[in-house]
Amino acid sequence: MRLAVIPGDGIGPEVVSEAIKVLGEVVPNAETTSYDLGASRWHSTGELLPESVLGELAEHDAILLGAVGDPSVPSGILERGLLLRLRFELDHHVNLRPGRLYPGVKGPLADPGEIDMIVVREGTEGPYAGNGGLLRKDTEHEIATEVSLNTAFGIRRVVSDAFRRANERPRKHLTLVHKTNVLEHSGSLWSRIVEEVSLEYPEVSVAYSHVDAATIHMVTDPSRFDVIVTDNLFGDIITDLAAAVTGGIGLAASGNLDISGRNPSMFEPVHGSAPDIAGQNVADPTATVLSVSLLLDHLGEKEAARRIEASVAFDLATRDQASPGTTTAIGDRLAALVSSNAAPRPAL
Amino acid sequence: MRLAVIPGDGIGPEVVSEAIKVLGEVVPNAETTSYDLGASRWHSTGELLPESVLGELAEHDAILLGAVGDPSVPSGILERGLLLRLRFELDHHVNLRPGRLYPGVKGPLADPGEIDMIVVREGTEGPYAGNGGLLRKDTEHEIATEVSLNTAFGIRRVVSDAFRRANERPRKHLTLVHKTNVLEHSGSLWSRIVEEVSLEYPEVSVAYSHVDAATIHMVTDPSRFDVIVTDNLFGDIITDLAAAVTGGIGLAASGNLDISGRNPSMFEPVHGSAPDIAGQNVADPTATVLSVSLLLDHLGEKEAARRIEASVAFDLATRDQASPGTTTAIGDRLAALVSSNAAPRPAL
Ligand SMILES: CC(C)[C@H](C(=O)O)[C@@H](O)C(=O)O
Ligand SMILES: CC(C)[C@H](C(=O)O)[C@@H](O)C(=O)O
Repeated sequence: MRLAVIPGDGIGPEVVSEAIKVLGEVVPNAETTSYDLGASRWHSTGELLPESVLGELAEHDAILLGAVGDPSVPSGILERGLLLRLRFELDHHVNLRPGRLYPGVKGPLADPGEIDMIVVREGTEGPYAGNGGLLRKDTEHEIATEVSLNTAFGIRRVVSDAFRRANERPRKHLTLVHKTNVLEHSGSLWSRIVEEVSLEYPEVSVAYSHVDAATIHMVTDPSRFDVIVTDNLFGDIITDLAAAVTGGIGLAASGNLDISGRNPSMFEPVHGSAPDIAGQNVADPTATVLSVSLLLDHLGEKEAARRIEASVAFDLATRDQASPGTTTAIGDRLAALVSSNAAPRPAL
Repeated sequence: MRLAVIPGDGIGPEVVSEAIKVLGEVVPNAETTSYDLGASRWHSTGELLPESVLGELAEHDAILLGAVGDPSVPSGILERGLLLRLRFELDHHVNLRPGRLYPGVKGPLADPGEIDMIVVREGTEGPYAGNGGLLRKDTEHEIATEVSLNTAFGIRRVVSDAFRRANERPRKHLTLVHKTNVLEHSGSLWSRIVEEVSLEYPEVSVAYSHVDAATIHMVTDPSRFDVIVTDNLFGDIITDLAAAVTGGIGLAASGNLDISGRNPSMFEPVHGSAPDIAGQNVADPTATVLSVSLLLDHLGEKEAARRIEASVAFDLATRDQASPGTTTAIGDRLAALVSSNAAPRPAL
């Protein structure tokens, strides 16, 4: 297993190093190569993602990213020049974000119920396509456009993936989240394709929710969701909300997948680089460890993935929530749990 | 005061009639004219918003709408043909949505803190402009576009309104919610205009939040928000979430304002027509009553508006939350409170 690792900025290197420690317990012979990308490289060289680096990244089985970003870099530079560029260049069309409230974790909801959902967010289209512009810049008559691009091809591959996942889950339930009553054109295309693909999955029940209503359900009745499939921008919004109600982005993992397997998929915690706590050994590496679990699952190492997730679940259920320990202590605990193979996957 | 009333479908007529009862206590000589629009008119005549009706509506000082919609009407028809058409024809550029957690109201958050925000949502631009289309419809090569249109003119009038409101509130704090790191063009335009207008309001402190992060803050730290200004689509999403954390859309009021005063503004509860409980005298008219308070405030009847809001706050603090009473009972209580002028505005 050849992994490219982008530790990145802030707490990125710290959490990544714990995640690789945990990985080593299940895949001792994983080969990792580190790539220096992010705010610090940009500051020192002006480079965001050189072609040669992109080429090397593409040679790996998967990519693990910590976090990139720093207040010293103008907003948008790293996002568009590095993070989104990777998604587009490597055709990461499925942005996978599980939202599970693990036993022992206290989220912001008074009565959360059981939360165990997966959001399949489209990753390479919609308003993220970078298609837009300005007219009469810096005048009183300036006009800015942003064009959301949606293709049958792009939607179908994501919707098919979501149905496949729903079909493998006990509840077999899929919710399309969109805003079809206002975004008439993209809405009709998404609806048509969900309807078409649903014919191949007669056991999967299908629901629809407008994105505004979905945010309400996310806080009043999140248990209703099993698999959600949605557009790039709506997915960006509701996955942060899903992370919040399941204990915060400190625990949220994500995968940027090229389902075709032509390009390596990339895995990263949803949280940012948190420069304010960087270098203090206090960042929680759990989300990055869970991202490694997603990585292994994607590479077909189902049992190893399951062991890591079970260990995280066990640790979350038993840790002192108020002071879960240092970054390295949590990493050590998780590595020990994984190696002892002691933690059973807790039923929700 | 000449008001056009659109009772609409489902619970619309019930809640509107209570709201008008309450209105009568503060403005006894208000003249109301009812207009039959919504699902039932569309079913019987095929009409959504005839020109003549639009012309008559425009002659009023303000419009009060209950709710329109019914499952028997295909999604989008009434939304685009009636609700959005009214917003665009009457230039309702400020979509005003207060989000206040009244004492006594239990929302979904375990520890909500004090919530008292106003969202100023742009109402006539962005992805709501209806600008988009389909290519190769119903084929494997279909492409759908949605164009978000953003003008300096359109943004400035809304941002100015938001700053004016922030400047009148004790905390004088304004948050721009957008997604500037991805939606580069519209993001830079919104940012520039907020920066420019902020120079006119040196006492207002300005913050920025990406829309995804804003949904997190809405459930983990909603007290941070005072006035939010945002784009049409982001506003749609975060106002539903704000309503959810302040006790549900059953309590959320809204105003669609033409700040210039050229056209009548329209006020409506955020909830829908709830056909499942229509005609049973169980719908809570509180959101519609609060919408009347917004209406009066907009028409300059500040004291009457304040009395109604204070009465609602008093009723919410003292009502039996589990069984607040029938639609008419709540309306009667609120009317009595307003007429007795007894309810002080509770401090948060
Ligand atoms: C950093 C940003 C470009 C990114 C996005 O909007 O997708 C982030 O919010 C995410 O969800 O991964
Ligand atoms: C009904 C729909 C068109 C509308 C909107 O999207 O604006 C609604 O959700 C709202 O928030 O008023």
